[in-house]
Amino acid sequence: MAEEIPDRTPVTLIGLGSMGSALAEAFTEAGHPTTVWNRTAEKAAPLVAGGAVHAEAVEDAIAASPLIIACLSTYEATREALAPGAAGLAGRSLITVNSGTPSGAREMAAWADGHGARFLDGAVKNVPQAVGKPDTLLYYSGDKAVFDEHETTLRVLGGDTVHLGEDADLAALYESAVGGTLLPALLGFFQGSALVTSRGLPASSLVRYSVKWLEMIASILPHLAEEIDSGDYTRGASSVGLFHDAIPYEAELAEEADIDIAWHQPQHELLRRAVAEGHREHSISALVEVLWKPQPLGQGSSGAA
Amino acid sequence: MAEEIPDRTPVTLIGLGSMGSALAEAFTEAGHPTTVWNRTAEKAAPLVAGGAVHAEAVEDAIAASPLIIACLSTYEATREALAPGAAGLAGRSLITVNSGTPSGAREMAAWADGHGARFLDGAVKNVPQAVGKPDTLLYYSGDKAVFDEHETTLRVLGGDTVHLGEDADLAALYESAVGGTLLPALLGFFQGSALVTSRGLPASSLVRYSVKWLEMIASILPHLAEEIDSGDYTRGASSVGLFHDAIPYEAELAEEADIDIAWHQPQHELLRRAVAEGHREHSISALVEVLWKPQPLGQGSSGAA
Ligand SMILES: NC(=O)c1ccc[n+]([C@@H]2O[C@H](COP(=O)([O-])OP(=O)(O)OC[C@H]3O[C@@H](n4cnc5c(N)ncnc54)[C@H](OP(=O)(O)O)[C@@H]3O)[C@@H](O)[C@H]2O)c1
Ligand SMILES: NC(=O)c1ccc[n+]([C@@H]2O[C@H](COP(=O)([O-])OP(=O)(O)OC[C@H]3O[C@@H](n4cnc5c(N)ncnc54)[C@H](OP(=O)(O)O)[C@@H]3O)[C@@H](O)[C@H]2O)c1
Repeated sequence: MAEEIPDRTPVTLIGLGSMGSALAEAFTEAGHPTTVWNRTAEKAAPLVAGGAVHAEAVEDAIAASPLIIACLSTYEATREALAPGAAGLAGRSLITVNSGTPSGAREMAAWADGHGARFLDGAVKNVPQAVGKPDTLLYYSGDKAVFDEHETTLRVLGGDTVHLGEDADLAALYESAVGGTLLPALLGFFQGSALVTSRGLPASSLVRYSVKWLEMIASILPHLAEEIDSGDYTRGASSVGLFHDAIPYEAELAEEADIDIAWHQPQHELLRRAVAEGHREHSISALVEVLWKPQPLGQGSSGAA
Repeated sequence: MAEEIPDRTPVTLIGLGSMGSALAEAFTEAGHPTTVWNRTAEKAAPLVAGGAVHAEAVEDAIAASPLIIACLSTYEATREALAPGAAGLAGRSLITVNSGTPSGAREMAAWADGHGARFLDGAVKNVPQAVGKPDTLLYYSGDKAVFDEHETTLRVLGGDTVHLGEDADLAALYESAVGGTLLPALLGFFQGSALVTSRGLPASSLVRYSVKWLEMIASILPHLAEEIDSGDYTRGASSVGLFHDAIPYEAELAEEADIDIAWHQPQHELLRRAVAEGHREHSISALVEVLWKPQPLGQGSSGAA
């Protein structure tokens, strides 16, 4: 059991799922007086064993600390959980750390404001196991004074702690902007795994190469972002045409291994549209120009959305 | 101009596009006697300035070295370019380094074999600027004796030089398996860029976070690959259900920023199909199970393929 250190800011953690528990544990380990609350009270037990105080009522959890961090599934769940203790939020700092949309964050900020709470919205850009590590990124947006006051405390959760700006929805905006790469990148890896396993080779034999490939992708992002910011797509290393002309190879590949690559179709459509709009010789980053257009794509597609 | 070093294996480079020129330059800089040939002869000039010998005829280029590396756009282009000198290939080592499918690599291997050449197919998993660096990955497959004989020479092109196996098509297989992540990951980044730029923020402000996110994705691949190899999807950190339940948020986001996210639709369909097939509580890696199925998806989609 970690020892409380007197000058550490007392912190209350609301929501003890996988992520909330990891956040609470980081605070107890760093010697912060830590109060915890969860709808399903049993989840508090390991944290109490680690030195946290369990509050039965959310009102008491809120009253226990000047800084309240809520890590529930959604903003709606957060408001539902906090509601009985909302009156106690006045003058305290409330930080939400859950996934959600920018508009959800704005609603949450308005709710907090309505109860007199000083508000920050944040996002943990990593898995619970990474909480507390020097390289782990968390970003926040909203009331900068709250961030400045609690920056040292927040740094307990991850060494790479950033304030994005005063607009409360910026953390959710960046979280959405960054997170959009996850499912498509994973699907790419799963498809690669299907390819090699269809040859009797283990998916694990692919990992080291895929990791290097992701590093390569990361290394070209600064240049691609510059192209997007300048609108000058004429000096790219890989052209739209290069990707476009590779389309037929994919069908051949899929046939060899009996893999369903239909999830590429609208990506191919974007390439075709970009070529049709004169971007053949432009950098692949010019695809952003076709994404911006609100014209519906794949109208005949069977997917709802 | 780099000096030739007598005990270095003479190398011939056929094809002096961006990548072929980078490969040739690495050899001249490492002191290998280097002969170059390109359909458009002018592209040889900078290499000749660096110490390479330019052959007018492909026959002479082939005759000049025991090791011939071809880096053209495709296997077809490679055979077309080599054809006039094919008789001279007997007994020499031929290595192709271009993108292509496994079946394309098998055809290429059969052609090389028909001309008595000892054959390896390879792939440079990086950009031309990375050629010659200690960390740059190139992998090869095919005749292991050729690889063993020329390993030191090949390492000039990149310190991370690997032989994948005797089957000549393995390099193309891994290249396809690894490369499938590129377009979807880039589209994810471009969409994120569209999101932040629609708020008047530069795409470059996203780069540092996206890079960290790609590192996070890379860090979970070993575990995901183990799940795929074992077929045990019950101990995953992120479930299919988690991704599935996030689908509605995307539409909300797209609406906020006037972004076309129709390219996600078939990815959502895969999530829905996975949930329908009982994978809700399973790790996201269970998506590989729905990719393996050769049933066509998005039949109504307007994309050809
Ligand atoms: N886990 C990750 O890898 C990760 C990474 C980055 C961000 N996040 C984000 O962090 C947030 C929490 O994730 P998690 O993994 O900790 O989720 P989780 O393990 O599913 O936990 C969800 C938490 O929300 C509570 N909750 C849900 N609805 C509630 C309601 N109506 N009233 C009261 N409590 C409610 C749950 O309480 P009960 O225990 O009573 O059900 C539980 O404490 C999510 O927004 C997630 O997207 C997670
Ligand atoms: N550049 C990269 O970032 C990169 C990265 C990894 C892998 N690769 C792969 O490396 C290979 C070469 O790429 P690159 O970027 O160097 O391409 P490139 O700059 O477009 O050069 C293509 C080369 O192929 C030659 N060629 C094409 N058709 C020919 C034909 N019928 N007969 C004779 N020569 C022909 C061209 O000759 P001319 O000069 O006469 O047109 C030129 O030398 C491709 O398979 C590519 O996928 C490239």
